[in-house]
Amino acid sequence: MKPEQAKKRAKELVAQMTLGEKMSQMLNEAPAIERLGIPAYNWWNEGLHGVGRSGLSTVFPQPIGLAASFDTELMKQVAVAFSDEARAKYNEFSSHGSRDCYQGLTYWCPNINIFRDPRWGRGHETYGEDPFLTGEMAVAFVDGMQGDQKECRKLDATLKHFVAHSGPEGCRHGFDAKVSKKDLYETYLWAFAYCIQKAKPAAVMGAYNTVNGEPCCASKHLLQDILRDELGFEGYVVSDCGAICDLHDFHHITEGKPQSSALAVNSGCELNCGDAYQGLVVAYEMGLVTEDTITKAVERLFQTRFELGMFDEKTPWDSLGYDDVATPAHKQLAREMAARSIVVLKNNGILPLSKEIKSIAVIGPNANNRDVLLGNYNGTPDQWITVLDGVQRNVGKDVRVYYTKGCDVVTKDVPKWEENTFQEALILAEKADVVLFCCGLNPRLEGEEGDAFNSDAGGDKTTLDLPDSQKKLFQALVKVGTPIITINISGSALAFHEIAEQSAAIVQAWYPGEQGGDAIFDVLSGAVNPSGRLPVTFYRSDDDLPAFDDYHMKGRTYRYFQGDPLYPFGYGLSYSRFCYQNLSIENQGDSLLFHIQVENVSDRDGSEVIQIYAKCMGDADEVPNAKLVGFRRVDIQAGQVWHGDITVEKKILYVTDQEGKSHIPQGRIHFYVGGHQPDAVSCRLSDTMCVEAEISL
Amino acid sequence: MKPEQAKKRAKELVAQMTLGEKMSQMLNEAPAIERLGIPAYNWWNEGLHGVGRSGLSTVFPQPIGLAASFDTELMKQVAVAFSDEARAKYNEFSSHGSRDCYQGLTYWCPNINIFRDPRWGRGHETYGEDPFLTGEMAVAFVDGMQGDQKECRKLDATLKHFVAHSGPEGCRHGFDAKVSKKDLYETYLWAFAYCIQKAKPAAVMGAYNTVNGEPCCASKHLLQDILRDELGFEGYVVSDCGAICDLHDFHHITEGKPQSSALAVNSGCELNCGDAYQGLVVAYEMGLVTEDTITKAVERLFQTRFELGMFDEKTPWDSLGYDDVATPAHKQLAREMAARSIVVLKNNGILPLSKEIKSIAVIGPNANNRDVLLGNYNGTPDQWITVLDGVQRNVGKDVRVYYTKGCDVVTKDVPKWEENTFQEALILAEKADVVLFCCGLNPRLEGEEGDAFNSDAGGDKTTLDLPDSQKKLFQALVKVGTPIITINISGSALAFHEIAEQSAAIVQAWYPGEQGGDAIFDVLSGAVNPSGRLPVTFYRSDDDLPAFDDYHMKGRTYRYFQGDPLYPFGYGLSYSRFCYQNLSIENQGDSLLFHIQVENVSDRDGSEVIQIYAKCMGDADEVPNAKLVGFRRVDIQAGQVWHGDITVEKKILYVTDQEGKSHIPQGRIHFYVGGHQPDAVSCRLSDTMCVEAEISL
Repeated sequence: MKPEQAKKRAKELVAQMTLGEKMSQMLNEAPAIERLGIPAYNWWNEGLHGVGRSGLSTVFPQPIGLAASFDTELMKQVAVAFSDEARAKYNEFSSHGSRDCYQGLTYWCPNINIFRDPRWGRGHETYGEDPFLTGEMAVAFVDGMQGDQKECRKLDATLKHFVAHSGPEGCRHGFDAKVSKKDLYETYLWAFAYCIQKAKPAAVMGAYNTVNGEPCCASKHLLQDILRDELGFEGYVVSDCGAICDLHDFHHITEGKPQSSALAVNSGCELNCGDAYQGLVVAYEMGLVTEDTITKAVERLFQTRFELGMFDEKTPWDSLGYDDVATPAHKQLAREMAARSIVVLKNNGILPLSKEIKSIAVIGPNANNRDVLLGNYNGTPDQWITVLDGVQRNVGKDVRVYYTKGCDVVTKDVPKWEENTFQEALILAEKADVVLFCCGLNPRLEGEEGDAFNSDAGGDKTTLDLPDSQKKLFQALVKVGTPIITINISGSALAFHEIAEQSAAIVQAWYPGEQGGDAIFDVLSGAVNPSGRLPVTFYRSDDDLPAFDDYHMKGRTYRYFQGDPLYPFGYGLSYSRFCYQNLSIENQGDSLLFHIQVENVSDRDGSEVIQIYAKCMGDADEVPNAKLVGFRRVDIQAGQVWHGDITVEKKILYVTDQEGKSHIPQGRIHFYVGGHQPDAVSCRLSDTMCVEAEISL
Repeated sequence: MKPEQAKKRAKELVAQMTLGEKMSQMLNEAPAIERLGIPAYNWWNEGLHGVGRSGLSTVFPQPIGLAASFDTELMKQVAVAFSDEARAKYNEFSSHGSRDCYQGLTYWCPNINIFRDPRWGRGHETYGEDPFLTGEMAVAFVDGMQGDQKECRKLDATLKHFVAHSGPEGCRHGFDAKVSKKDLYETYLWAFAYCIQKAKPAAVMGAYNTVNGEPCCASKHLLQDILRDELGFEGYVVSDCGAICDLHDFHHITEGKPQSSALAVNSGCELNCGDAYQGLVVAYEMGLVTEDTITKAVERLFQTRFELGMFDEKTPWDSLGYDDVATPAHKQLAREMAARSIVVLKNNGILPLSKEIKSIAVIGPNANNRDVLLGNYNGTPDQWITVLDGVQRNVGKDVRVYYTKGCDVVTKDVPKWEENTFQEALILAEKADVVLFCCGLNPRLEGEEGDAFNSDAGGDKTTLDLPDSQKKLFQALVKVGTPIITINISGSALAFHEIAEQSAAIVQAWYPGEQGGDAIFDVLSGAVNPSGRLPVTFYRSDDDLPAFDDYHMKGRTYRYFQGDPLYPFGYGLSYSRFCYQNLSIENQGDSLLFHIQVENVSDRDGSEVIQIYAKCMGDADEVPNAKLVGFRRVDIQAGQVWHGDITVEKKILYVTDQEGKSHIPQGRIHFYVGGHQPDAVSCRLSDTMCVEAEISL
């Protein structure tokens, strides 16, 4: 129901609860209150790229790949499909009286933390390193999942993790992120603010860490002054799982559960993932929290349950059920999104694959690995199309496909009687017209604390290098002499400088979802003309990075990095060529309207991601490099000219001072409009032009 | 080349070696002797069901499934395909100068140990519990792999593990099998003797254990008196890997490597898998072994290398290469063999699946598990068709396929935030017209010492029960009420009494190879009319079994078991019905010719495994129950009568006395000819008739 009515109903219902009943509803495993007709409810649901951890669902590409599409329209379609499946599963479970974890409507996604350092293990859960791209993708996702029915919100979206949370994983429970006010507002808070303003997400999740000593789940400054007062957030706050206990166990800010719970609730954290809020009973007895505070928190929580229609006889989604889960249409969408997420980083002309090719050697530890399709926080699809599967399913019948693994994803100390296919890989490479070298990482090598195998680093990467086993195999394959198309499957940037030089083509495929293999072959074959763009910088070496635990933005991400990247943010090749002409900018009060003309000067239909970068020339508070302020993905047929407009809100152009305050930029603003970053000269296609203009606000 | 010439060439070549060079050639990693033009050679290759551990190959069903086909002709085709791939890989590797483990021509298969107890973890590597079936399948396999070219043996087959080797895995290195002479000859030696006589395998592998205190790799009694003198074996003996060190490390028969090596070589073990024979230098210095003995051993080894054509300029298989590996024809053969290996144990009429079925719920931990396809000692296919894949690939487009796992293969202690699909399984079962419950084990739960996860039992099963997690899921599914077709994927018998009662059908699929999912659906849909038969007894309970480490055959396997099995050896249903008539037996000197008439009295083409069981009525040395003495798999069209003959050699009918000597049975012999064991009354199809006759030899 509508917010006002839901608020009223929540107030009435909560008024009938005892204090103990109220407190019980603030745990993620909220028990039933049968005398009031309230069923049990578990608030915990995951849906970064499809319904997660709840069995059957369509698994879309991992968020870093969704971001690489730079396609807000398709992103919204993905979120609509995901939320249809989520509602369907809720209907099925609740009608069977099942109200366990991952069977509800309150979803703890998207993860909009800034992927500030490529070593962060969970970076692939995010939309990359740029606040504006993150904000735009998040708005599309939240819009899609929360639905457009004014009478009933479809799902609750939860922006996480508030705020400045991006590793290290190994010490996340006790970590204090030291963040300048400028970095906080210019980078870490930016997408939260943008998305709260544009998409009104129902919830925000507080992070494990503290920021300048302020605990993210228990700070009035962060949750009241900034989140609610400055950013205008009107929903509820949930703690990350176990984060309330971190206050006493790791941050040593409080003495125990009663004190931690009281501090969190008093600071504005209404819901506890975990069991720390069991300490609220004692906290109340100790006078640390008032019943009024508890009541207000529980009212917020029940308001959202009313808004979601949990107590309504009918909602617009009651007809959804398992026949709407993992449907052919959703699979097709997953394939399309995966194809658009793929970034071609190098192409010496070998792509798209020639019809003359009669044999393909598919080699590498990720060639036939099902796990890399799914990323993390994933559901379980009923179809898993690996790279090998994709080649076999789609290649012509007269093409011989050879497969061997060649090496493990990392060097393993295995007995000599175990299978070793290194030599076979070289022989098959020799026989084939082309090698698809399927390398990269997997979601266990880069992942969440406790979830990843590389326990030394607690889930984070220790280096940007491709693992030794794979480098060794690649170098041996190079010596064979057959052209190599490298398909890198990873959720983050790798520094594969040598591989880039010696490959005929490089295809960055992320963790591409259940239909990944088909999508990759769509790009290889040219059935889909690639249009993905990097949402993160690919650096040349570990040496390019500041210390991982240093939260200063200086030297990080394309906006601040002063070196020469291997591949820059926003970069990605097409099989078509695009030519920009006749840029004009119209000042429309609160926004600027960019009139843009792009011609597809090739004989192949294609898609271009038009990117607008801005650099405020006369403002000392401006970030070092031009920053993304607008983009649009457009389809342009061969030989055709696209004329269109992109609107850029002036607020997007504002710069942030040392106090974190934003202001109209001083001096003239230089705009670059093209298919890439303006400073990406070294790797920009020579025939992709960029148009420029300057104005003052 | 031919044996005589090879023997001569070997003698000449070995004569040029120093003593040290000779000794070096008795290790499985034999180094090159460049001055004599001898390349390095690693003797270790595995090929239980296709080229193993060597990268790309076609993976056929695990041997227990091959045996369940009761199809010697198809078995030979499988062995021919496997040996084509093996030769192809040898050609590719050796022409690239690569001579590592799993790149040669000397294969350490088949495993013809008797699967005397269903708890043995490696039982699925064998052809089951019956000596005659084992012998027949082994002959077909060895014939197929060794080839029919008199000038050049295609591969070396190695019968293993000589002898009386079948667990326990956990203590195999120091285990003494206490075996009566009668059991030794009647059961444990039988298939070795049969196969050596019929197929002349190039090699025999000695087992880890001792037999009545005699070490299998270092006993003159076993290796000379029995193997060579009695059984007529003319090839070479290789030790199981590390088995020579077991002599001093675990059996405590010798003091160290020199003594163990000397004892083994002096007893007739020419080749050492491992490095114990490095001790031969010291053994020679100590006077424990003579140069003449060493020379004779090395001559045997080089004779086989010459026979394999390793030193020839040309062999009949030189044209084979990777284009003969994992071919469509081999995949088709793998699918056909898998379909014929599948045993339908129960069918209330639900199979084959009706065209009216519009939705199928594929549920269970083995439904979409790639690992269970491959068994152990497997290669790496380029296609893996799970049960789920098979249903999706072959089912009509208008049929909705639901999938969820429902439970893990064993009960795991997992955090509550991990995916749990138990409830989803029940909901999907409710929605579907039929449930395919895909249960069973996997090759990690039943496997080899060190290879399996259930380390408590060292790879063996501790119980015949289906794991609790799966039983619990099944019972919940039963309550839903949708008909359940249980597909049990395991390499051995399980005691799933309750599941059998409550399932509409039971399909035993073994570890069905890379094409398993297609083959299973072939049987479910009726595209293939099932004809597989159990090569092992399915008991009702653990209580039916003697102690696992007791090697007495009393009470074990269908020949000695006095209880009522759940499903007997030889059992398996068809969608057709067969009627036996007009049996007559013709005495032909050394053999009996059975004239048999079988009518397919159904309206569906089918295959029948005609089985001949014999019981010598007046001989006190006879095994307790009628034993298999002949079988033949025949295709019979609907309504047609098959007339044909099966020859049974009289020696097959001989009985074994307490001293292990065999003799012509006294009294009359009663023969039962039919589709099942004669005493399998309780589960025999009422309409499958059996014909009987009696003769004296």
